[in-house]
Amino acid sequence: MPKISKKGLHMPASPIRKLTPFADKAKLDGKKVYHLNIGQPDIETPEGMLNAIKNIDFKVWAYTASEGTLVYRKKLTEYYNKLGYNITPDNILVTTGGSEAITIAMMTCLDPGDEVIIPEPFYANYNGFACQSDIVVKPILSYIENGFALPPISEFEKLITERTKAIIICNPNNPTGYLYSKEELDELKELALKHDLYIFSDEAYREFCYDGRSFISPMHLDGLEQNVVVMDTVSKRYSACGARLGCLITKNKEIWNAGLKFAQARLSPGMVEQIAGAAAVDTPDSYFEAVNKEYTHRRDTLASALNKMEGVFCPNPGGAFYVVAQLPIDNADKFCQWMLETFSYNNQTVMMAPATGFYSTPGAGQNEVRMAYVLNNDDLEKAMTCLNEALKVYPGRVVEAESKKAKAESF
Amino acid sequence: MPKISKKGLHMPASPIRKLTPFADKAKLDGKKVYHLNIGQPDIETPEGMLNAIKNIDFKVWAYTASEGTLVYRKKLTEYYNKLGYNITPDNILVTTGGSEAITIAMMTCLDPGDEVIIPEPFYANYNGFACQSDIVVKPILSYIENGFALPPISEFEKLITERTKAIIICNPNNPTGYLYSKEELDELKELALKHDLYIFSDEAYREFCYDGRSFISPMHLDGLEQNVVVMDTVSKRYSACGARLGCLITKNKEIWNAGLKFAQARLSPGMVEQIAGAAAVDTPDSYFEAVNKEYTHRRDTLASALNKMEGVFCPNPGGAFYVVAQLPIDNADKFCQWMLETFSYNNQTVMMAPATGFYSTPGAGQNEVRMAYVLNNDDLEKAMTCLNEALKVYPGRVVEAESKKAKAESF
Repeated sequence: MPKISKKGLHMPASPIRKLTPFADKAKLDGKKVYHLNIGQPDIETPEGMLNAIKNIDFKVWAYTASEGTLVYRKKLTEYYNKLGYNITPDNILVTTGGSEAITIAMMTCLDPGDEVIIPEPFYANYNGFACQSDIVVKPILSYIENGFALPPISEFEKLITERTKAIIICNPNNPTGYLYSKEELDELKELALKHDLYIFSDEAYREFCYDGRSFISPMHLDGLEQNVVVMDTVSKRYSACGARLGCLITKNKEIWNAGLKFAQARLSPGMVEQIAGAAAVDTPDSYFEAVNKEYTHRRDTLASALNKMEGVFCPNPGGAFYVVAQLPIDNADKFCQWMLETFSYNNQTVMMAPATGFYSTPGAGQNEVRMAYVLNNDDLEKAMTCLNEALKVYPGRVVEAESKKAKAESF
Repeated sequence: MPKISKKGLHMPASPIRKLTPFADKAKLDGKKVYHLNIGQPDIETPEGMLNAIKNIDFKVWAYTASEGTLVYRKKLTEYYNKLGYNITPDNILVTTGGSEAITIAMMTCLDPGDEVIIPEPFYANYNGFACQSDIVVKPILSYIENGFALPPISEFEKLITERTKAIIICNPNNPTGYLYSKEELDELKELALKHDLYIFSDEAYREFCYDGRSFISPMHLDGLEQNVVVMDTVSKRYSACGARLGCLITKNKEIWNAGLKFAQARLSPGMVEQIAGAAAVDTPDSYFEAVNKEYTHRRDTLASALNKMEGVFCPNPGGAFYVVAQLPIDNADKFCQWMLETFSYNNQTVMMAPATGFYSTPGAGQNEVRMAYVLNNDDLEKAMTCLNEALKVYPGRVVEAESKKAKAESF
């Protein structure tokens, strides 16, 4: 029998999905499982977007241009220029989800063995995409004590070699919810210009900023035009994860032109999705206002419940819809599996993503989990009650995290 | 300014799409362009498939399982088992188009530097996908004189090294239309077993076999279960290229498990497409009968018109909807560009794909073009008239191909 590739062996399993068989088993056993493991919002997709699908009137479900239809790219330009990106349709490549925007950005800008620096914890699938292209991820630790703020630039400088080609930031951050400030982005800009690096800006959660704070993109920074590649998706913005519709944006023509060749190889993004995506741009502001109000409420519920639990610490994030919480546990992977396999409270349990999968540094995140607040407030409260009970009886409970909370309070 | 990757530089542009700017210009100038360059059928998508889209009734456009929904994989199992593949839903990974099935198969089975043998001319994007994963394509020439039949196994043997991991066949073939026989597949089976190689079977055109001939898949061959990976798509089968819905099928659990990790990284295939794809499985046989009758008629029109032209030779292919024709020209790239840029007949011209892009051997296919018979018969006839006139006046005309026709007749 022929062997599979080393790449196939080394490719990481998704830390968000790898516990799914245990969840399925728990459900088969009749347990109610609260899914906080995956960023699949329960928020309804805008009606205009769904109606666009229902109203399709073509006879042939055809390929579109590899870079996306001009109609859709024009609508996207409207959306981005309202944010001050100052782009034209020629700066956009429409992609199959944000995932493909990431893989095209990586392949276009990095060769095998080249390095990308990413503050960790980071979106776990960056590891997978890097593995696909034999790109080396250089993680740089950020810390729960200061809410996972950008690590000092001096720490980045230490990691830069002649193989360093790019820095990835995800803003607001998945998994931490951290919202980068203008000052932090300015520091990154100076670093990128000094060392001739790309800034890959994952902006999947752009629309989810709380407490009146504004979203700033590297696209807003003068002088960085040739260095920035935005990787975006409609998945979270319009609660349309199953659309698999994203885009790559860059003002660097060389990147766009090379990116187009990768896009041509796979022929075309989805046609129906682009029709729906064009309609989505006309989603009224009231939709986002209602969604943000709901998420703010949920975040408050979650963070406050967590911080009340003994030995638990959780920063109050400025954006996205995730928190990373530190728990009084020995091992997050073991704990999350135990929650599904062994524990139940009133026949309920909670599925979370062990934070270890969001770190590249071995051993980091052992006592942290990521939770997505994609359930309604009532379910969130029930899930938190369940977690609190679980922590009381978990056999691997350790008491150590209090000091972090105290440390955080001194920041 | 940071540099793009070597991979981005080396990535080939699509030979099918690279002349698009010239076609756009010709249209702007008021010329009617007959598109024979791309396999985008004009055939209508089955009504049941389009109705499934119009009738969606979900509120949240959500991710699906990374391997595809169980509902869709069950329906696909029905389809494939009617063909005698003898599979279960667990043998299927649903992919974003056939393209992703190819990239996942390659990454799962081959490491950078590993080699894949492909009879050429071959589907041009194999080159792009191989480039993405730093896989080495070893082409093996097939010949227009015998309709591009499978080259002798002794020629394959000459190319096999310890880095050889797989052979790709596309059956019926894009671009040649050649339909492989049971005997040819049996020979490949022996070769694969002898050298422990994978057979990647691209079956995008399975439903398009003419003259009463049957399609045979490597899936039908006993003893080859652990070696076969089918790469499939709904694009051509249901004239739904814009759906970007395909699948990878394998009975080799190691491949499936590793493939799932690549699928998890990109989260999910499209959700609406899977709903439509499930409905498509119930497309009545009468749809395929009508389509095949139409394509047979077109193929006959095209092949007969081509073979009547002085100095032109074109085999009469047994499947798919392409022909590769040899023309009395100096350079297919120059000729195809000239057709769009300079030539017109009654203000009309024809867009074709230069066959050079379908060969990996430098210099091969210089006097060949690929034509897709995806226009109605009337337009095809007009396109052929146009081509005939063009060949009379093309400045780079050479007379040499007649001998091939004579040679072919002696086969």
